Parts: sequence; C-alpha cells; structure tokens
Amino acid sequence: MGIELVLGLVIVAALAGLAYACANFFSVKKLPEGNERMQEIAGEIRLGANTFINYEYRVVAVVAAIIVVVLAALISWSSAVSFITGAVMSAIAGYIGMKIATYANVRVTNKALTSKSLSETLKVAFKGGSVMGLCVAGFALLGVFIVFIVFGVLLKQIDAAVARDGSVALASSFKSIVGMFTDLNLGGSFTMTLSSYALGCSIIALFNRMGGGIYTKAADMGADLVGKTEAHLPEDDPRNPATIADNVGDNVGDVAGLGSDLLESFVGAMLSGTIMAIELFTNLLFHDTALLKALIYFPLALAGIGLIGCVLGIASLFIRKKLSSNPHKELNAATWVSAGITMIVGFVASYFIFGSLEVNLGEEIGFRFGWVSPMVGAAIGIVAGIVIGKLAEYYTSADFKPTQGIAKSSVQGPALTVTQGLAVGMISCMWPCIVLGLSIFISFIVAGPYGVAAAAMGMLSFVATTVSVDAYGPISDNAGGIAEMSYLPEEVRDITDTLDSVGNTTAAIGKGFAIGSAAMAVLCMMTSYMFSFNHVGVNNPDFGIDQMFDGVVLNVINPLGLTGAIFGAAMPFLFSGMLINAVAKAAQRMVDEVRRQFREIPGLLQGTARPDTKTCIQISTQGAIKEMTAPAVLAIAFPVACGFIFGAEFVGGILVGATLSAIMLAIFCGNAGGAWDNGKKYIETGVLGAENGKGSATHDAGVVGDTVGDPLKDTVGPCLDILIKIMSNLALVMGSAFASYNLYDIITK
Amino acid sequence: MGIELVLGLVIVAALAGLAYACANFFSVKKLPEGNERMQEIAGEIRLGANTFINYEYRVVAVVAAIIVVVLAALISWSSAVSFITGAVMSAIAGYIGMKIATYANVRVTNKALTSKSLSETLKVAFKGGSVMGLCVAGFALLGVFIVFIVFGVLLKQIDAAVARDGSVALASSFKSIVGMFTDLNLGGSFTMTLSSYALGCSIIALFNRMGGGIYTKAADMGADLVGKTEAHLPEDDPRNPATIADNVGDNVGDVAGLGSDLLESFVGAMLSGTIMAIELFTNLLFHDTALLKALIYFPLALAGIGLIGCVLGIASLFIRKKLSSNPHKELNAATWVSAGITMIVGFVASYFIFGSLEVNLGEEIGFRFGWVSPMVGAAIGIVAGIVIGKLAEYYTSADFKPTQGIAKSSVQGPALTVTQGLAVGMISCMWPCIVLGLSIFISFIVAGPYGVAAAAMGMLSFVATTVSVDAYGPISDNAGGIAEMSYLPEEVRDITDTLDSVGNTTAAIGKGFAIGSAAMAVLCMMTSYMFSFNHVGVNNPDFGIDQMFDGVVLNVINPLGLTGAIFGAAMPFLFSGMLINAVAKAAQRMVDEVRRQFREIPGLLQGTARPDTKTCIQISTQGAIKEMTAPAVLAIAFPVACGFIFGAEFVGGILVGATLSAIMLAIFCGNAGGAWDNGKKYIETGVLGAENGKGSATHDAGVVGDTVGDPLKDTVGPCLDILIKIMSNLALVMGSAFASYNLYDIITK
Repeated sequence: MGIELVLGLVIVAALAGLAYACANFFSVKKLPEGNERMQEIAGEIRLGANTFINYEYRVVAVVAAIIVVVLAALISWSSAVSFITGAVMSAIAGYIGMKIATYANVRVTNKALTSKSLSETLKVAFKGGSVMGLCVAGFALLGVFIVFIVFGVLLKQIDAAVARDGSVALASSFKSIVGMFTDLNLGGSFTMTLSSYALGCSIIALFNRMGGGIYTKAADMGADLVGKTEAHLPEDDPRNPATIADNVGDNVGDVAGLGSDLLESFVGAMLSGTIMAIELFTNLLFHDTALLKALIYFPLALAGIGLIGCVLGIASLFIRKKLSSNPHKELNAATWVSAGITMIVGFVASYFIFGSLEVNLGEEIGFRFGWVSPMVGAAIGIVAGIVIGKLAEYYTSADFKPTQGIAKSSVQGPALTVTQGLAVGMISCMWPCIVLGLSIFISFIVAGPYGVAAAAMGMLSFVATTVSVDAYGPISDNAGGIAEMSYLPEEVRDITDTLDSVGNTTAAIGKGFAIGSAAMAVLCMMTSYMFSFNHVGVNNPDFGIDQMFDGVVLNVINPLGLTGAIFGAAMPFLFSGMLINAVAKAAQRMVDEVRRQFREIPGLLQGTARPDTKTCIQISTQGAIKEMTAPAVLAIAFPVACGFIFGAEFVGGILVGATLSAIMLAIFCGNAGGAWDNGKKYIETGVLGAENGKGSATHDAGVVGDTVGDPLKDTVGPCLDILIKIMSNLALVMGSAFASYNLYDIITK
Repeated sequence: MGIELVLGLVIVAALAGLAYACANFFSVKKLPEGNERMQEIAGEIRLGANTFINYEYRVVAVVAAIIVVVLAALISWSSAVSFITGAVMSAIAGYIGMKIATYANVRVTNKALTSKSLSETLKVAFKGGSVMGLCVAGFALLGVFIVFIVFGVLLKQIDAAVARDGSVALASSFKSIVGMFTDLNLGGSFTMTLSSYALGCSIIALFNRMGGGIYTKAADMGADLVGKTEAHLPEDDPRNPATIADNVGDNVGDVAGLGSDLLESFVGAMLSGTIMAIELFTNLLFHDTALLKALIYFPLALAGIGLIGCVLGIASLFIRKKLSSNPHKELNAATWVSAGITMIVGFVASYFIFGSLEVNLGEEIGFRFGWVSPMVGAAIGIVAGIVIGKLAEYYTSADFKPTQGIAKSSVQGPALTVTQGLAVGMISCMWPCIVLGLSIFISFIVAGPYGVAAAAMGMLSFVATTVSVDAYGPISDNAGGIAEMSYLPEEVRDITDTLDSVGNTTAAIGKGFAIGSAAMAVLCMMTSYMFSFNHVGVNNPDFGIDQMFDGVVLNVINPLGLTGAIFGAAMPFLFSGMLINAVAKAAQRMVDEVRRQFREIPGLLQGTARPDTKTCIQISTQGAIKEMTAPAVLAIAFPVACGFIFGAEFVGGILVGATLSAIMLAIFCGNAGGAWDNGKKYIETGVLGAENGKGSATHDAGVVGDTVGDPLKDTVGPCLDILIKIMSNLALVMGSAFASYNLYDIITK
C-alpha cells in the first residue's frame, strides 16, 4: 500500500460506512410501527427527543460561534474552520443516531409483537444501533479527510522538501514548514489545526453527554422518586407522567451522547498519533521525512481499515438467517469479526507502510521500532480495552461478589447499601489502572510515545461496532417501555427485557471501554502538549536518543507545575459535584411536577385519566439546558483562564492533575453506580429470601442505592471522559497563546 | 541567638512542654471522680481503652520489629535506631494522651455536676486535652534532639570543614560528609536517618489512626444502626450495649489517633525543611556551609519557639480566674496567643539566624531570599492553614448553605440526602486546593523550595495548642456520655453538650488543618525525594540558579513516571475502599451482638437489666486489629514492592499520583461526612417544620446520611493523611535501595 493511497482509503471507508448507515436507516424506517397506541407513544418520544436536540443545538451554536471567533482571533483561520468541521460532523452523527433510535424503538416492539422471535427483534434493534455506530466512524473520517485535503499544504510541502533535499532532509529546514507550536506568525501550526478539529468534536460531545445525561437522569430520578417510591408504580408505568421523558432521555443521553463521546475519543486517538509524529519530528527526535509521513498516515490507515472491518462485522450479523438464542453471543461475534479483520489487515498495512523503512527506524528513533511495532502497540490497546471492560463487568454484574455484597448489606438498611457501594466503587479503581498503566508502559517500550498513541488507536479502531452494540441497548430499553405503556402481551415484554438485560451488560463494558480509551487518548495528547511547549530537542543541539525518556518533562516539582496539578486534580471533583447538583435540581422540578399531576389530575392513579407528559418533557429539556451551562463554562473557561494567568506550564500541570483524578472518579462513579443498579436487580430476583424481595425494606434500600448511583454512572462518569478530552484539546489548540501571553510572565519578566 | 544554641532551645522547649504536660496530668488526676455509678462507667471505658491500646501496641511492635530488621539490613543501623526512636516517642505520646483522656472524661462530668459552671468545666476538659497537645510537641522535639545528638556527627564534621576550608567551602568536598543519597557504603545518609525518624512516627500514626478509626466507627455504627434506628434509643443510652465501646472509641481514635497523626505531620514538616536544606546543598545549589547550618537549624528553632509559645498560650487560659461564657472564644484566644508568640519570636529568631548571612543568600540561592524569607513562608503557611480550616467549617457547619441544603433535600428521602452530600463533598475540594496551591506558589517565590517547607512548618509550629483544642472535644463528648449513662440531672448534660458542640466545630477546623498540613509536608518530602535521586547539580557542572526551577523534575511523561502516577492515583481509592469495608465488617459484628443482647437479655430494653458491654468492647478491639491489617500492609508494601520492581523514578510517580488523589479524597470524605453529620443535627433542631423534625422520615434520611458519612470523615479521611505521609517517608528512606536494586534495571540494562 503506497502511503499516498491512505487518504483515498480514508474517504472510501468513510463513504462505505455512511452508505451502509444510510441503507440501515431506511431499512429500519420502512418497517411498520404497530398499533395506534404504540405509534402515539413513539410519536411523543420522538417529538420530545427532537425538541430537546433542536433546543440544545441552538445553545451549542452560540457557544461554538464564540469559540470560532476566539480561535480565529487568537490562533488562526484554519483552526476556526477545522473546529467548525469537527463540530458539524459530530453534531450530524449525533442527530442521525438519535433520529434512528426514535424510529427503531417502536419498530423493535412491533417486531417482537408480530414475529415473536428473539433473533428477528434483535436484528431490528441492532440495525438501529448500527446506524449510530457507522455514523460515528463515518463522519469522523469524512471530517478528517476534509481537514487533510483543505489544510494539507503541509504534506505537499514535505514532498517538495523531499524532492529538494533528498529523503533525509535536515529537520531544521522543516521547522518553518511544520510550524512551530509557539510561532503565531505562521497562523498556527498544522498540529493546532488538527487539534481544533478534535476540539470541535469534543464541544458537541460535552453538550450531548452533559445535556443528555442531566435530561435522562432528571426524568429517571423524578419518575423513580415519586412514581416508584411514593406511588409504588412499576417501571415504565403509563400512569407515571415522567415515563415518556425518561424514554426520551435514553435516546438523548445514551444514544446521541454516547455516540458523540466515542466519536471524539476516536478522533482524539487518531489525531494524537499524527500530532505526536509531527511533534517528534519538529523536536528533531528523528530526521527522516519518509518516516514522518508513515507515522502521520498510519493512524488514518488503521481507522479506515477499522471502519471497513466494522462494516463487515456488522453485516455478518444480518446475513445469517438463523441466530442463536443468546443475543450477547451474537453481539460479541459481530465485535470479534470487526476487531479480527481490523487486526489482521492492520498488520498487513503496517508492513506496507513501515516495512520499507525498517532499516532507518532503529537508528532514527532509538527504541526497538520495527514495522510491526505500531501494530503491536495497537494490539496492546485492544487487549487493554477488553480487559478494562471485563473488569467493569466484574465489579458491576450481579454474577460476582462485589455487587452481591451490596445487595446483601441492604438487609441492614440503606446506609450500608450506600457505604458498600462507595467501597466497591473505590476498590474497583485499582485493577483498571494497573491494566492502563502497564499497557502504556509496554506500548511505550515497544514503540516509544508513538506506541501509546497506537494503543489508543487500537482500542478505538473498531469503534463503529462498539457504538452499534452500545446504542442497541437504549433502543431495546425504549422498546420495552413502549410495550409496557401500550399494554402489549407479557411475551413481548419478555423479548425486549432479554434484549435490555444484555444491553445493560454491554453498557457496563462499554463504559469501562470509554473511560480506558479516553484516558489513553488524553495521555497521548498530554505528551504531545509537553513536546510542543518544551521543544526539548530544538534548544539542545546535543539532544539525542538517550534523552528521549528524560526529554519531555512536566516539572511537577516546580511551583507552576505543582500548583497547576493541585488545581487540576480538584477540577474533576468540582465538575462532578456541579453535575450532581444539576441533576438533583432538575429532578427536583420533575418530582414537584409529577406530584402535582398525581394530586391534580383526577383518576390518574386509577388509570382512567392520562398524564400530562408534555410538561414533563418540557421540564427535563429546560432543566438540562439551564443546569448544564455552569459546568460547561467551567470545563472550557477554567483551563483557558489559568493558561492566560499562569502560562503554558501551569496548564500542563492542570492536565496531569485533572487526568489522574478524572480517571479515578470516572471509574469510581461508573462502577459504584452500576453495582448499585444491579444490586437492586439482584434483590428483585428474590435470592435473598422472600422477606427481602421486591417491596421489602431491603428492596427499598436497594432502590436508594440505585437512585444515588444513577447520576454518578450516567451523568458524572461519562462527562468526566469528555472533561479531560476537552481540556487537553483546548490546551493543544491554545498552548501557544498561553505561552505568548500570560500574566505571570508579564509580572515576573 | 547563636546557631549553636538551637539544639539547647529544642531540649529546653521539649522539657518545658513535657513538664507542663506532667503537671496538668496530675492536676486533672487528683480531681474527684464523682459517684459510684460514674466511677464504674468511667472504669469500664478506661479498661476498654487500655485493653485496646495494649493489644494494638503488641501488633505494632511486631510490624516495627520487621521494619527495623529491613532498615538495618538494607539501609543502615542509624536508620533503624532512628526509626525506633520515632516510634517510641509517638507511641508514648499517644499512650499518655489516651490515658489522661480516660481520667479527664469523668472528672469533667463531675466538675459540671458539682460546680455547675461552664468555665470551670471547660478548664478541666481543656487541661485534659492539653496533656495530649503538649506531649505531641514535647516528645516529637525530644526525639529530634536525641537523633541530632546521637547521629549529629554531620554537624561536627561541618564545623571541622569550616575550620579547615573557611566558611565558604567547596561543596564538592562536602559530598562525602553529607553523604550521597545513593551511597550505601556510607551506611545511609543523614537525610535518611532523619526520614527514618519520621517514618517511625508515621507507623504509630498509621496504626493509631486506623485502629482507632475502625474501632470507634464500628462501635458508633453498631450503636446507631440497632440502638437508634431499630430500638429508637437516644444517643449514649445506658441500655445500648455498644455505647461504652463507642465512648472507648472516642479516646482511642479521636485522642490517641489524632495526636500521633499531628505528631507525625509536625515531625515531617520540621525535618522536610532540614532535609531540603541538605539536599539543596548536596546538589550544589549553594555552597555556603554557614547558610547550610542556618537552614538546617531554622525549622528546629521555630518548632522550639512554637512549643514555648503554646505553653504560654495554654497557660493563658488557666491563669485567668473568670472566663467568658463562650468556650469557642476562649479556645480561640489560647490558639491566637500561641500563634502570636510563635510568629513574633519566630521573626526575631529568623533575624538572628539568617540576618548575618543575608548578603550571601541572594547570590547563593538565586531567588529573593533575605533573613525574612523563611518566616514569611511560615506566615503564609499559618494563614493557609487557618483559611483551609475555615473553609472546612463553611462546608460542614449547619450555619451555612451547603449543609442546610443537604438537610432540606432529606425531605425527599435518603437517596437525595446522600446525593447532595456527595455533591457538597466534591465541590468542597476546589477552594482548599486553590488556597493550598497558591500558598505553595507564593512561598516558593519567597524562598524557593525551602519556602514551601517553611510554610508547612509554620502551619504546624503551634501544634501543641491545636491538638489540645482538638483533644478537648472527645473528652467533653465522653463526659456527656457518662452524664447520660449515670442518669445525672439535665443541667449537667447541658454543660457538656455546649462543650461538645464547640468540640464539633473545632474538630471540623482541625480536620481541614490536618489535611492541609499533611499535604504541605508531603509535597516538601516529594521535592526532597526528587532532589535526592535526580542529583541534578552533581551530574551537570553548569547547573546553576537559572535551572533551579527546571532542575528537579519528575518526568510524568516518561512511561515510568506516568505509569507510577496512575498506580499511585488509584492507591488512595483502593485504600479508602478497604477501610470502609473494614469498618462495615467490624460494625456488622457489632450489630449482630447488639441485636443478640436485646433479644437474649430479658429486661434490657426496659432498663431493668444491664447490657454486656465487655463483649462489645472485645468485638470492637478484635475487629479493629483484624481489619486494619490489610490496609496497613498495603500502605507499606505497595510503594516498597513497586520500588523494587520498577525503581526510584516510578516511586516518584506513585508519590505524585497518590498525593494528588489522596488530598482530594481526604477533603471530600472529611467535608461530606461533616456536612451529613451536621445536616442531621440541623434537622433535629426542627427548623424544617415539626413534621420534619426528630423521628420523622426526613430525620431518618438525615441519619442515613450521617451513618454513611461516619466512616468517611472519621476513618478514611484521617487515614489518607497518614497514607501519603508514610509513603513519602518510606520513599525517602528506601529511595537509594530502589535506585540500586530493581527488577526493571536488571532486565533492561
């Protein structure tokens, strides 16, 4: 594979993925919706979801416009355009994914009703999910293609230089081409343009995750606190006015939010490899331009191959006539096919891209780096991602001791349920961190800092299938809700419940995966950031391979780095606390409204009158938009303000502190929340004895744990992933501005 | 003040402090104990406390013996002896403090009964507390004196070198004297001997805090879960079998545990300044031996002055005949007198120690460093400590919005109580971190890394009074319990309740102070550690002042540092989760026992039969000892194992990660727990309306929050302080061994 073909591969993969997404979209949409009641409920959910996303995107547009102006004024026009591209790609992907989810839900219910077949129903649900998955990878790659074509002057200039100076040109002559990080005169470097693209994606991810997360949990907690706890209604009862809002929330938070979150991780991982390569080159750590191009293009190639692998993997589920009765096995098979193809073709591509350069590599980069190295790094990432996901399953599934322990302690009342859940969440941080740490360590030994980027890329290469599997969950959940609200026969609900419970497991694994991949991507960006403002090699002519390990440093012992790290470590805690408050406030309003309806609508609790679901949807929408402003502003303004006050090194400290504490908090929140949730379900199975089953004091204690865990696992945890990604993207884009203008320098120099 | 007089000042201050402690001890002990019932209860508490501490110290002796052997084998005999000295000093201080607390409690009750005077009663309680406070500072200084006299060869050698080479000797000639960190042949350097002393103190602190914390909370939760929640008995009811154990726990955890914790911080702060000075000198950052001696002695001088200031401050409360009716004001006055004297005399001492060197300092150290600099650093520390304490009060006192918000949300049930408390705890991390970060930043600008050490020292210089005020709280708490159990008149309980509620506020402030000072001390030790294994100056002859800021680095971007930081950040979470489990398990056994007694002892609930309190004490004792083993082993073994596997730089990463995440978790746990506790009390005042007062569902929700918060604020939070201190002490002592023998080097080199 010639290196020049990589951009072609990218666009072909992007278009193939989007075409398949389009086909699946219409294939789902043309299915029948079922009876009038089902159509009506689905229509309400769809309307609610549309209302929210339109409202939200208007707010995002304002924020994005402000950022565009700042970028254009302070950095460069190319950054601003690149930022818009990223935001638009992510926004479209989220929109389409949410759209199809609100079409697919009722069609899944109807398929379960008409076919009575688990595997037929599974196919519809997964087809709906696959639209989101394919859009995530497809639009991400489409945007990358646009950015590379529009701003790819860099690549042409490299070619010109190679023609002029031969393949090993003196790197110093390239400094003006690649663009120094701190050199504002060049109108921003290409690395900043790439980072701006990722920043655009992360802005959408922030709002989708946060807005969606607050929306869905406000509705969920509102529905639970009054409906379940006070009025003792079952889940998804049509008499509960907040039920529709709860179902809307699934589409908004768990489909669109999740999609744009992983889109951002995918882009972040891909570009961090590219940026890392450019920074290594700019810092004179190697001098071979052919190698530079190979390193720049490899992540793109792997992403393209991954998307094609996912198309085949997803299709492998649909082409088979007869599926097994175990949906989990079928979804796993699709994932394994996608990952397997990606891995095998990835090794081939690695050979073609790096094989001819092999001789140079050892000398040039200094660690053992052969053609196989980047792909070994990627493989480590894949394994790490799977192990971290499995660990999340261990800590949160009712099949294992931690969650069972929470359930058992609920016999002693809610205080011990909560205490045990906190303990499980805290303890669960260590193993994923050991896996994460060791995979970073080993991939670094295999291929230097580039190896870490490769590991992140590997973890995310088959993201289309990961997201498809994840998005299938909320669609099935919604389908069950529609069945319940439409008074359909028990057997329909049985099918959707089976799909839903598989969805819960895949969601837990997916959350572990999301945290792991975000951490990997952010650690790469952090390294790139340190490279970009340290300019280790540039200032030191003797800088060589031996200093590789010591060269790029964040000096956490100097006061700037250390103070930054302390500020940074506190940041995720503040952010999380604000998010919890946001959910609680929005939920409070929902509780008041549900109580009002139970009180004021005669016959509602008896089932003779209909609840006013629209007002509930309105409350969730307005609550989410209103409450997400403060944490969103904090996430963006905090690092920027600190950068202009204390400078670039301080921001480096912030990144280190924030990343470390956000990883811990995210794992803690995800696992504690998941364990509480499944602990409650474990109690409901009645294994603790009849006197501790559904409706008992023990169950009430379990419900308290679940309610406490809801905002942690579905709002706080996922948003922390985005927090650290957005902060590192901001740092990469604005770093040069921080270095050039900051109060501290003005005062002290 | 001649520098040579400093050791004299230290021993005079130590003996003065201990003599005053002795006087107060016997002055309290000779007071009458009251009626038979009171004597009996006090006797049970005393017996329980003695049993526990004897049992615990036997376990500690085994652990300490193992460490002594390791130190003697791997490091040096001087380290081993120094370690024992620290452990013995801390153990004696904790023992005496606990002893007097169990004498003082009943005498406080009796004074309230006989004198009916708040201020007379306050004097007895504070006199009891002052024994602990004075012992903390007195024994700490006594031990330091011993270590300096026994191992002070260093100082004599410096003098000899000065006589030989003149006052500005070439630092290279000193390297062999001061002893290189990695130079095992010298039998360990003096810095390692000093660190070993601190390590000895921290081992006792670890066991006292952890054992005491598990003990007290197991008893407390046991008493609450069955007694209060199930049997609806009031606090400290004599029918509740766990009540005595609960009261024993106060003496064990809140007096002995707190004392040895702050003793360790005091020693850590004092010695980190000394160690920092030696490391700066060894790394050729300055060359003036007179300056070296001044920098070594200044922290000792400040500590000595602080203790004398505290003696006067504490005495100022007793010499006044008539006290105001506000105990908080009186305690504050004692603190201000102590701090004020320390501060003023500190500036005088700073002038005498550094004044004559002033001309050299600017040139030698390179940042603006005059005679006033160290004391300005210390003053910044004092201010930061007070502000952090006040912030803790803001987040946890029922007078302010955060805690009131938790109380109000309890109307919606326990889930929202817990959720709101989590949010308050998380949000409360930011401001203390900003204060901490800025004080580090400013004190560094004032006096370089030595300034940070000075700030830590300043914060802790008047520790004797801080601990006295803190220890007064549990004594008053116990006194109230004895009054309740002895059926004394309401007015006695009113007096002790007033004292107790003031104690709650001082405890909240004290906790903030403990975290802040631990963080400061650890950050200094971390810097010393980086210096000690980086040897920046030694390897680089051009190393100069300009590289000061860049010289001492922890490379968190290289895989060793980064992986270490990730492991380290997860460590406090694992440790906390294990502690929570330990408390829950021990509490579980207590719950079972209390239930058994209610069931099997006829007439117990009617008050006609007496509970079997001894069994409860036994359960708490055995539970605490058994459950603390795992987390204690983790705290010690984890950094040591990682050091021998991955080497010294990896451990540096662990320190950074662990410190950052432990600071956040400790603040979170302390403030969330305090806010839940006071939120419950706020509900009990009845301000939320009669239907939400004591005994209502709202109150039950508040009790759930309080119970969840109990292990967080009284076990986890305080133990996290010790965790990071013990890890950094271990690193300082073992760093050279890690650097010399580790698996990673063996494999890669």
